[in-house]
Amino acid sequence: MVDIKKVAEFLNEHDFYRILCHQNPDGDTIGSAFALKRMLEMLGKTANVCCSDAFPPQYDYMTRVENNPEADYNTLVTVDIADTSLFGKKYEDLKNSVDLNIDHHASNSNYANISFVDSSSAANCEIIYKLSLELGIKLDSYLADCIYTGLTTDTGCFRYASVTAYTHLAAMGAINAGAHHSEINRAMFETKSLARINTEQLVIGSLEMYFESRCAVMMLTREMLEKTGAKEDELEGTASLPREIEGVLVGALFREKPDGTIKVSVRTNAPIDASRLCLNFGGGGHKAAAGCSFSCDINEAKVKFLAEVEKILDERNFSNR
Amino acid sequence: MVDIKKVAEFLNEHDFYRILCHQNPDGDTIGSAFALKRMLEMLGKTANVCCSDAFPPQYDYMTRVENNPEADYNTLVTVDIADTSLFGKKYEDLKNSVDLNIDHHASNSNYANISFVDSSSAANCEIIYKLSLELGIKLDSYLADCIYTGLTTDTGCFRYASVTAYTHLAAMGAINAGAHHSEINRAMFETKSLARINTEQLVIGSLEMYFESRCAVMMLTREMLEKTGAKEDELEGTASLPREIEGVLVGALFREKPDGTIKVSVRTNAPIDASRLCLNFGGGGHKAAAGCSFSCDINEAKVKFLAEVEKILDERNFSNR
Repeated sequence: MVDIKKVAEFLNEHDFYRILCHQNPDGDTIGSAFALKRMLEMLGKTANVCCSDAFPPQYDYMTRVENNPEADYNTLVTVDIADTSLFGKKYEDLKNSVDLNIDHHASNSNYANISFVDSSSAANCEIIYKLSLELGIKLDSYLADCIYTGLTTDTGCFRYASVTAYTHLAAMGAINAGAHHSEINRAMFETKSLARINTEQLVIGSLEMYFESRCAVMMLTREMLEKTGAKEDELEGTASLPREIEGVLVGALFREKPDGTIKVSVRTNAPIDASRLCLNFGGGGHKAAAGCSFSCDINEAKVKFLAEVEKILDERNFSNR
Repeated sequence: MVDIKKVAEFLNEHDFYRILCHQNPDGDTIGSAFALKRMLEMLGKTANVCCSDAFPPQYDYMTRVENNPEADYNTLVTVDIADTSLFGKKYEDLKNSVDLNIDHHASNSNYANISFVDSSSAANCEIIYKLSLELGIKLDSYLADCIYTGLTTDTGCFRYASVTAYTHLAAMGAINAGAHHSEINRAMFETKSLARINTEQLVIGSLEMYFESRCAVMMLTREMLEKTGAKEDELEGTASLPREIEGVLVGALFREKPDGTIKVSVRTNAPIDASRLCLNFGGGGHKAAAGCSFSCDINEAKVKFLAEVEKILDERNFSNR
């Protein structure tokens, strides 16, 4: 891996950039890409952003700039993309031609000619902020909004364990440069569609508690989605609801997928390891957040899943504390 | 008002401190008081914290230190208390004997011999952090936890408009000194009692939308509270629920109080001014968050309130956009 000075040198030495976001783009990949585009333009370069999927409308304040995704280019940069499989269908043929990859995922597959991967960064936009310092670029309020958006969306508004002192330093830099932080946070975290609110209500209504209230289970069925009209992408964060209940060590949301399989999103509190629990069913993930799938009836899946939860709680003597 | 250097001088020159928190203590007054106690002890002084009400158990990690609220003292300091009416019943007789008040409320009534009021601070703990620098105290992880708790609880985890670059600077200092930021955030923001979750469900179930979905109204009745067993102090944040719905400009939560009055918590999005709206009913508050009361039936209150909302929306042509 190169150091950040080399990345800055590379950016200064090249021109005619195409910057690629990952599919199903989020605030961090969009913020990174459009901030980088603006920074390169400030250096007198040409740069355009592209993405396999459309940019969601809540990010209009970043994406509504002059941008030609189909423009010719000499230099291909990817941002916040751990692997070429995330390029999306439209751009999958770019996988062998990436000049520079700027990313913060530990799982990065090193697919680019030059890779800068800093997994200590909670958001990819932390790296973009560092780059602005390295390039001697003074942030304007547009750049500040792009960078702040990446920071706050990838950390649940500075809430996750991945946040470091540097995350707050970058936020400080963005706010000093005029980021509209409270408007951005309101749009990202305090706005829910009516369909989502109605769906959450049905999901919470399905709550069942097990093992002396150490395990909480909720359901999200196709019937609920049909009733409320909510779409999958409106439901981010729903998986955390069961674990939010006081005293719960294992929270699980059972979802019926369109193909009939049952996807279980598991969230745990220490010392229960969510990835270990999901491994029993061929799933995986992180310590506090993991997932697994079942190809059986939702109630059958629940019984199988709860049997393993009981074992793990028994082991730890958490069920009879 | 004195400057922060004078506050540091004062603290160095005196001894035998009593530090008073406000009644119904929250993370910011507790964090401020226990951090100040520890800092004074580091300077070789004696300091104890007291409060009219018991400290809620979620703050045990700060309050479970050797502390004698009844100890004799020479110097009385109040933290995060805008007015003597917030001392609480137990300590109301201290109102004329406060030596030093450290606060961040613009409405501070200047009741102390020496007042340090910085209303640009989003949390009182920002001032405590600044004081630690002024006093040359190196934060340990306990101090870092106290300060971080005040910062995050008073800003909704760095979400509110009151947050400044300095808030993030202080968070950076606390994290660098070992604050358990993700554990604190989980305890403060991601843990709800089952009674609260059940109450929220009923509140959301009462949703009514008016004026082309620009106004959302929810109810919190005595009957709901009896059904779920939730207590008032478990319900913080409930008032924001109606405004969280996409497109809503005026969100109102109508609560039945034990004495039969109806309290309305109003949350608005720009350009609607919540305080102006509430002023019509003898209430008040801030631009985005205000409140008012009615001493009539809850449905009658709703009709009166909605008539004013309609006027304001009409005025602005928001109802027929």
